[in-house]
Amino acid sequence: MNDEQVYAMRHSLAHITATGVKKLWPHAKFGVGPVVENGFYYDIDLGDVKISESDFKKIEKEMRTVINRDELFEHSTMPIDQAIAWANDNDQPYKSELLNDLKRSGTTVASDLDASEMGTIAEGDAALDHVGFYTNGDFTDLCRGPHVESTGKVGAFKLMRVAGAYWRGNEKNPQMQRLYGVAFATQEELDAHLEMLEQAKARDHRKLGKDLDLYTTSNLVGAGLPLFTPRGTVLRDVVAGLSNQLRQQKGFTKVWTPHITKQDLYEASGHWAKFGDELFLVTSQETSDKMALKPMNCPHHTQIFASQPRSYRDMPVRYLETTTDYRDEKTGELGGLNRVRSLTQDDSHVFARPDQIEQEIDGLLASARELYETIGMKLRVRLSYRDDSDAYLGERELWDSAQAQLKTAVEKNQLEDFEQDGEAAFYGPKIDFMATDAIGREHQVATVQLDFVQPERFKLQYTDQDGNFQTPVMIHCALLGSIERFLSVFIEHTGGWFPLWAAPEQIRILTINDTVLDYVEEIEAMLADTVLMQPVKYNELRFARDDRNESLGKKIREATGMKIPVQLIVGPKDKESREVSVRTQGGEEKIALNNLTDYLRSL
Amino acid sequence: MNDEQVYAMRHSLAHITATGVKKLWPHAKFGVGPVVENGFYYDIDLGDVKISESDFKKIEKEMRTVINRDELFEHSTMPIDQAIAWANDNDQPYKSELLNDLKRSGTTVASDLDASEMGTIAEGDAALDHVGFYTNGDFTDLCRGPHVESTGKVGAFKLMRVAGAYWRGNEKNPQMQRLYGVAFATQEELDAHLEMLEQAKARDHRKLGKDLDLYTTSNLVGAGLPLFTPRGTVLRDVVAGLSNQLRQQKGFTKVWTPHITKQDLYEASGHWAKFGDELFLVTSQETSDKMALKPMNCPHHTQIFASQPRSYRDMPVRYLETTTDYRDEKTGELGGLNRVRSLTQDDSHVFARPDQIEQEIDGLLASARELYETIGMKLRVRLSYRDDSDAYLGERELWDSAQAQLKTAVEKNQLEDFEQDGEAAFYGPKIDFMATDAIGREHQVATVQLDFVQPERFKLQYTDQDGNFQTPVMIHCALLGSIERFLSVFIEHTGGWFPLWAAPEQIRILTINDTVLDYVEEIEAMLADTVLMQPVKYNELRFARDDRNESLGKKIREATGMKIPVQLIVGPKDKESREVSVRTQGGEEKIALNNLTDYLRSL
Repeated sequence: MNDEQVYAMRHSLAHITATGVKKLWPHAKFGVGPVVENGFYYDIDLGDVKISESDFKKIEKEMRTVINRDELFEHSTMPIDQAIAWANDNDQPYKSELLNDLKRSGTTVASDLDASEMGTIAEGDAALDHVGFYTNGDFTDLCRGPHVESTGKVGAFKLMRVAGAYWRGNEKNPQMQRLYGVAFATQEELDAHLEMLEQAKARDHRKLGKDLDLYTTSNLVGAGLPLFTPRGTVLRDVVAGLSNQLRQQKGFTKVWTPHITKQDLYEASGHWAKFGDELFLVTSQETSDKMALKPMNCPHHTQIFASQPRSYRDMPVRYLETTTDYRDEKTGELGGLNRVRSLTQDDSHVFARPDQIEQEIDGLLASARELYETIGMKLRVRLSYRDDSDAYLGERELWDSAQAQLKTAVEKNQLEDFEQDGEAAFYGPKIDFMATDAIGREHQVATVQLDFVQPERFKLQYTDQDGNFQTPVMIHCALLGSIERFLSVFIEHTGGWFPLWAAPEQIRILTINDTVLDYVEEIEAMLADTVLMQPVKYNELRFARDDRNESLGKKIREATGMKIPVQLIVGPKDKESREVSVRTQGGEEKIALNNLTDYLRSL
Repeated sequence: MNDEQVYAMRHSLAHITATGVKKLWPHAKFGVGPVVENGFYYDIDLGDVKISESDFKKIEKEMRTVINRDELFEHSTMPIDQAIAWANDNDQPYKSELLNDLKRSGTTVASDLDASEMGTIAEGDAALDHVGFYTNGDFTDLCRGPHVESTGKVGAFKLMRVAGAYWRGNEKNPQMQRLYGVAFATQEELDAHLEMLEQAKARDHRKLGKDLDLYTTSNLVGAGLPLFTPRGTVLRDVVAGLSNQLRQQKGFTKVWTPHITKQDLYEASGHWAKFGDELFLVTSQETSDKMALKPMNCPHHTQIFASQPRSYRDMPVRYLETTTDYRDEKTGELGGLNRVRSLTQDDSHVFARPDQIEQEIDGLLASARELYETIGMKLRVRLSYRDDSDAYLGERELWDSAQAQLKTAVEKNQLEDFEQDGEAAFYGPKIDFMATDAIGREHQVATVQLDFVQPERFKLQYTDQDGNFQTPVMIHCALLGSIERFLSVFIEHTGGWFPLWAAPEQIRILTINDTVLDYVEEIEAMLADTVLMQPVKYNELRFARDDRNESLGKKIREATGMKIPVQLIVGPKDKESREVSVRTQGGEEKIALNNLTDYLRSL
């Protein structure tokens, strides 16, 4: 099956779900039922009836009956007024609302429905006065399609969960029940996905974040604003340190900017008009300043570039800043580190001459490749180009040259890539990095984005060899993306068994009894003098001692529970032979004390 | 002269200034005329007449006439209604307003007048129905005193500047002219002060910040929100690094908290009631959350402490975070780095058992002492104790024990100290550090503050040896204070000639001609391998090369203008003899290349 076929299959299963639900609860009122990653959902209003997981078996049974009947999906269209009458006759107020919106505006109100949801009702630009329907058996649904030919052709599926969801995502609207399913072309693929979900559950970073004491949340501070404990802060610092180090080697220098700004900055950049209602607003009680928390750092960085005259010899100018941005996410969508309101970006901006694009992209790609190799994640990249429409700003010649330079840099770095025309931002082409984790999930991580527009808007300039003013190109890049989101991926990728260089507590010394305490002090002095230089420089060993009067078994269980990568077990015999028993995930072995630091450096 | 006498002298000079001004401009209306550091000022309304520095000579001449007449300062009192009539008869509307306020409230409205200003009118608690006046010659002023005996006894003075100042600091009120003077007991002291001011002017961090490209400001970002360039960011990182390193050696571990919080956190801590109107408020457009930018970090840190059960064995728990706080300062009061709205604190909090206070304070004092010794600033400390009033929270026994422990720790660290009863915060005693800079100015820097109240308010707990819950003590400490303010002091203390370990650009290689470029590369490779370990660990050398086709003289002038501490001059003879000419503030000398890194480490 190709992607379109899988899409049609999942979308058809949404209809089959609704068919089954309506059989069981004939008064069901339906919202939207789009395709999502790995499956589909349908939003359903059952009045006082609450679906629970124990109902899944009987819903699935009804669905299988529909599938076994192999009903055709039959397409039809209707004038919009007739469709509204149909919705009202069938007691489908949500469908009626969507149709009325469609009638009023010529299109659905886009702000509260994503593209996929809109796809379930809009019939394409050609026929805005007609809307589409699909019928299988005695079930008819407002729908743009596509569908498989008949209900028998839907592969393997499973209902997964049900959750509350406000109609159109707005908390002022009624709460519906969102019934999720997964679906794949074959049972094998479904089984593999379910197995992956089992693994993912055990690796859930919210669970590990708590178990391993990495971060906490507070009702007093608020949702989406995690606080990092000492252990979690080590993780933050060490991954940001790696990301910074890779770029500092390429000539980037750190800058510092405040987290707030007058709104004037975003009016100048153009962000205010586009994203003004997504910002946290800041009110000064002492002055009349209108301010905002920064949701990105580029406008601040332009002001540092603009603070000095620049010549072609000074270019490129490369700024690096790990700093926290604030985005006003809805609290219902916040959970764990995946989506937060305080997102710390390992951000960088290059101000370059147009002829320097390839060289700069090349350096950033090499840094990204090295970072994700170090993490042990496979990377591939998407090249997002412009299309032939006039939706893009900046000269065509500059775009063509820039896109060619991006492609050359990607090839030079031997990265697996695919190209998408029409996916560029209006202000420049970009490269998105997708990293595959240990259980096969792909995550979007780093981005390299060209920008032909902000330099113009801020009137940034450098003088060329002839003394004329020229406008630089900006290159935005974050290797980790948001540190919080990256950590959610890193925790789940490793399952909490961080590589030695990153582990918050790298080594725990477990004593067998108190006769070895002097020997332990000797070991600790040796560890305190050991500084790892790979992959992050100046990485002092982080170790602790468990010399409680407890059994060794208990000490090992606790250290293993905290996923300490190196456990040094020290008993009287080890003291005598000047060895230690080193316990890692790979097993246990005796190491002579003299070889201990070399051994640790080799891990 | 003792402090009280100097105070009386400066205050008397404020009256003499007013006497002189009234002689020159009989329609002058007077506001308040308090004593300030090193001198005094008087706020004056002259209608359309603008005083300029060119008028100082004639005002001073009038003042000397008054001084030479040696008029007695004669004290009298008046019932408040009679005083109001006096103010109205004499066309002194500002005095009238103050008197009316005093009459209405029984005291002046404190919010817009500092203690010193209030002192100019309030006559003490005993006689609120009468107010005081002082008369010299034909000039009478509402005043509480004290004054010197007669106008002849005022030492040496000089008018310094005139600036606009809103009446009572409120921009909605009329703007007056604030006329400043300095005054000392002797001409020698005045001359020394004026000489210091000249030096301070040359070292002004706002000038050096621009000349040395350390930070910039942007009208689009706003006042009090400096942006740090690459050079300034090195300074920030290196001083914060030193401060953190000193505490990490004492067992502090880094944590990370967001810059915003729901207001609930400050309602719980009690800050909301006290400081709610001094905060930047944050509005979510997506939710109804009421939030604020954090002006301090302690409430956030309590939430990390509270995220785990703690036993007496876990104590003390020591958190360290260099993070930016936001305070809603009036923009008129913002200038340079001295007072900013974005202040980055090198903050730390200890959660300790009451018996651990001395040990913890001792560690922090040792860190502060080492830091300011490294910076080359002399420290002294003020011990702020409670008095016998009931204005303090927490048990008396805990206070007594804590104050004794503070004193012991101060003595152990051999710090010059003085004690002030009644200067403690209501929630605990504290130690303030005052550091003296290279031109003799004393700056308040670090603070160590005990806190018996926040742990109670947040219900923080640990279990003691008997399994009972106990409340810990909190110790707040910032060694640098605000990094921005510290940098303003550090820049002016060094005059921009930073010590090698801190200089943004430590070394510049100046070539005599292009025949030495291969030798320069050899030098650069050697410098790139050199990492300073004192006083900050892992401090990689920061160097640049000036190999332009310009004269050596010009290259030296530019490097010296940028206050690069080490200039390496490399010519053909140096290459031949494998030496370099090292130019520092101490002079110039030849160093063999083989000895270069040792030499640099010794600087």
